[in-house]
Amino acid sequence: MNGAQSLVQTLVNGGVEVCFTNPGTSEIHFVAAVDQIKGMRTVLGLFEGVCTGAADGYGRMTGRPASTLLHLGPGLGNGLANLHNARRAETPIVNIVGDHATYHLKHDAPLTTDIESIAKSVSGWVRTSRSAAAVPSDGAAAIAAAMAPPGQVATLILPADCSWNESANPAPKPESARPTSVAQKTIEQVAKVLRRGKPSVILLAGSVMLEKGLWLAGRIARASGARIIGQRVNGRTQRGTGRAVIERLPYPVKPALEMLKGTAHLILVGAKPPVSFFAWPNMPNWLTPKDCQIHTLAEGDQGGIEALEILADLLNAPSEPERLYELRIPPLPTGELTAGKVWQALAALIPAEAIISDEGITSSRDAEKWISGTPPHDWLNITGGAIGQGMPVATGAAVACPDRKVFAMQADGSGMYTLQSLWTQAREKLDVVSIIFSNRAYRILLGELKRVGVKEVGPKAGDMFSLSNPEINWVQLAEGMGVHAMRADTCEQFNKYLEASIRSPGPHLIEAVIFE
Amino acid sequence: MNGAQSLVQTLVNGGVEVCFTNPGTSEIHFVAAVDQIKGMRTVLGLFEGVCTGAADGYGRMTGRPASTLLHLGPGLGNGLANLHNARRAETPIVNIVGDHATYHLKHDAPLTTDIESIAKSVSGWVRTSRSAAAVPSDGAAAIAAAMAPPGQVATLILPADCSWNESANPAPKPESARPTSVAQKTIEQVAKVLRRGKPSVILLAGSVMLEKGLWLAGRIARASGARIIGQRVNGRTQRGTGRAVIERLPYPVKPALEMLKGTAHLILVGAKPPVSFFAWPNMPNWLTPKDCQIHTLAEGDQGGIEALEILADLLNAPSEPERLYELRIPPLPTGELTAGKVWQALAALIPAEAIISDEGITSSRDAEKWISGTPPHDWLNITGGAIGQGMPVATGAAVACPDRKVFAMQADGSGMYTLQSLWTQAREKLDVVSIIFSNRAYRILLGELKRVGVKEVGPKAGDMFSLSNPEINWVQLAEGMGVHAMRADTCEQFNKYLEASIRSPGPHLIEAVIFE
Repeated sequence: MNGAQSLVQTLVNGGVEVCFTNPGTSEIHFVAAVDQIKGMRTVLGLFEGVCTGAADGYGRMTGRPASTLLHLGPGLGNGLANLHNARRAETPIVNIVGDHATYHLKHDAPLTTDIESIAKSVSGWVRTSRSAAAVPSDGAAAIAAAMAPPGQVATLILPADCSWNESANPAPKPESARPTSVAQKTIEQVAKVLRRGKPSVILLAGSVMLEKGLWLAGRIARASGARIIGQRVNGRTQRGTGRAVIERLPYPVKPALEMLKGTAHLILVGAKPPVSFFAWPNMPNWLTPKDCQIHTLAEGDQGGIEALEILADLLNAPSEPERLYELRIPPLPTGELTAGKVWQALAALIPAEAIISDEGITSSRDAEKWISGTPPHDWLNITGGAIGQGMPVATGAAVACPDRKVFAMQADGSGMYTLQSLWTQAREKLDVVSIIFSNRAYRILLGELKRVGVKEVGPKAGDMFSLSNPEINWVQLAEGMGVHAMRADTCEQFNKYLEASIRSPGPHLIEAVIFE
Repeated sequence: MNGAQSLVQTLVNGGVEVCFTNPGTSEIHFVAAVDQIKGMRTVLGLFEGVCTGAADGYGRMTGRPASTLLHLGPGLGNGLANLHNARRAETPIVNIVGDHATYHLKHDAPLTTDIESIAKSVSGWVRTSRSAAAVPSDGAAAIAAAMAPPGQVATLILPADCSWNESANPAPKPESARPTSVAQKTIEQVAKVLRRGKPSVILLAGSVMLEKGLWLAGRIARASGARIIGQRVNGRTQRGTGRAVIERLPYPVKPALEMLKGTAHLILVGAKPPVSFFAWPNMPNWLTPKDCQIHTLAEGDQGGIEALEILADLLNAPSEPERLYELRIPPLPTGELTAGKVWQALAALIPAEAIISDEGITSSRDAEKWISGTPPHDWLNITGGAIGQGMPVATGAAVACPDRKVFAMQADGSGMYTLQSLWTQAREKLDVVSIIFSNRAYRILLGELKRVGVKEVGPKAGDMFSLSNPEINWVQLAEGMGVHAMRADTCEQFNKYLEASIRSPGPHLIEAVIFE
């Protein structure tokens, strides 16, 4: 067995069953091995940002790592932005990057790159295999590292000769680390704080944003009067009717300050102390009041659910949260199409157990208002601020959950970053409906101009935020990559296309031409 | 004047007149400054790989740096592959990357990234501005670094508060370093070697691949009997009728070894000792014969032209090379369309002073055969092996040379990496003809399978190299981004579309559906 074969078998042993890839010469033995070893599905992306984003979406939905397979430093570079998002989402990924043969590196051939330096910016773990014999144990270590709580990108750099030389036996499934338990004393301390009844906020992030964590937090809120708030962006939130209500910190500073005003105690569960997304001139970037005391119930790598369970017991919390999302299906919208009405239409028609990959940016302002009262669903945010995540994450989520409908709610400017996702969706016949908010602008930057204190927008600056010259025709782009596509200019058209897209398995794309 | 304004004025003072950008919040003050300071053209790309590749094409054609303006680590990551190519092309680029405000970094907000680590893999110079007052001198230092012979990527990281705070006066144009002169003794040594008359090869790379260097090398060849060979890939080669003939090292190892067989002396002018592009199992990767002596006439940062001039004098070289390209315009091809016939048609119709951005990969095998006998032109190779360079480089070359016709000879798989280039071409009304070699495969990887010793291609592996499921419709993709496009299935169609595209200013795209 060569190194590549032993690695593929090690990955399969460790539960890594999908590889999102755009391989090159250095990765060919891995690709060949996939036909020789059973149990690995390979999914081709026409650009590495599609592959890494898809691995992120897959990992968010399964809690298990997919692997990638990228071509040296440039392939890693192309996938870097979505690995950055995955890092912020705490998604487990086994990120495999091929390299030159060990003995070729010293010659500095054209593709030679400092892969480790690039990889470390997005990875919690980086290792370069030194020999074919070391590859299976390196592979198992990568799986274990990826799964280390709360989950991270583990990058394994694989020199070509380590793939083609004779290797050792494949490694068995590695032991997965479990989250460390929070000390009883810490939980009792938090219980004591909450019993005092001062204005308190419990700030959640990570795995506690799933149904169970939110339910526990909601029970604690009912027992203590604390307010439950989610971090602004989250890898995966479970929402919808019957689940506990959770607010989110707003993006602009003023309403975020307003939300946290008067908070005496902030209790972190998997979250960091809240700061603004950017710093803006003459604006605070630290969001809690000066005299607010910050307590950590659980770090990201600790058992947040377990800690919430113990805390709920200590507080004798009632068995149900006070506030649950109630079913609230709106009528279909009519007339002129706006971003809000797109969400309204989705709320009217969305099937249960849908997955929403939300990169609507400014067009997602009304998302929660409309969608939170619909049947249970998962909601995947753009976590690291690196645009071009939405369609790749939707692609990976659809590979992970073939029985669920996936909606990619996609801003047009951001969508252009990784539009190649559509081709992979067509090739794999994925059940994804991409909805493009076509406002023909980097709309968010027009808002940012005011926030950073630029008073007058000159013609050149204005031009940098406009996508209207020329207009992008998303129907042609999608059809050019084999995806069925429609353009909606009115609510009536949009409703009809959305209904049809939900009824028939995807992929589909709807360009929603919106005017605000 | 704030830091951004002072920087823009410093750039303009230093001859940096174009900025290829996809800005975000942290870069808004720079964008605003472009309206307040005269002399900077901003060109928007819908993906950073377009911006960095365009800056590369611009720098190759002008010898002066363009600037980029990228959004933190993810923006840099998206542009990294083409910066890698620019590094290998030795192109001067002032690569500006916005960052969080200095005081915001410690909070590790979602977009926070280790920008320096990512940047150093592709940059010869990296600096992070520490204050607004330091920005103009940092900007001037970046220009000087970019222009340091032979040219390199200089990355300036610009925290947002260094842009918005009050700054110092703009810096004047910095002194440019000149290439250091080669020691007379070194040149005499090489002359002595050549006079011995043993089989010798002069291997050229970098600025000596332009007309003047090739002419000098050709005269030296005539005087000494040495063979003149160019490095495999070059940022810019000047070729065509009346210019000195130059061979190139082949990509496959066997013919490369064959070309260098029997060489007693290898003389490097701006080039490195030749090695294979990849290492392949059971194949040498070092290409010169065992007993070949390697001499360096000029390093990349030395005055290669000057050294060749002195060498030609020492050898009493005749005033003209022996072998010049002669005009050889073929007839238009007929019948079934192949990659070779695409090049034949281009040779039949190409106007003088054209610029060819060549990312045809396997489809460019016959490029030199057909094109070398056409009127003088520039030829831009994919230098670092990072695919997705061809259309961005063509875009930047067209910005640099608005009076010349630019041809992007583009493999389909590679073209999909940075197809967003077409939108920028439409927006800027650039005179580019993109010709897509549509063979619906990563054809080169099918060849690589044999080279790496994989005997049987399984169905999953074969699937990773195929782009035929679904087929990509380049006409729809181009029209979706506002570029006039045509699909040619026969030589007759292709000839007609090419002729029309040359006659009318671009951009245009022709999808050439080829069968070998």
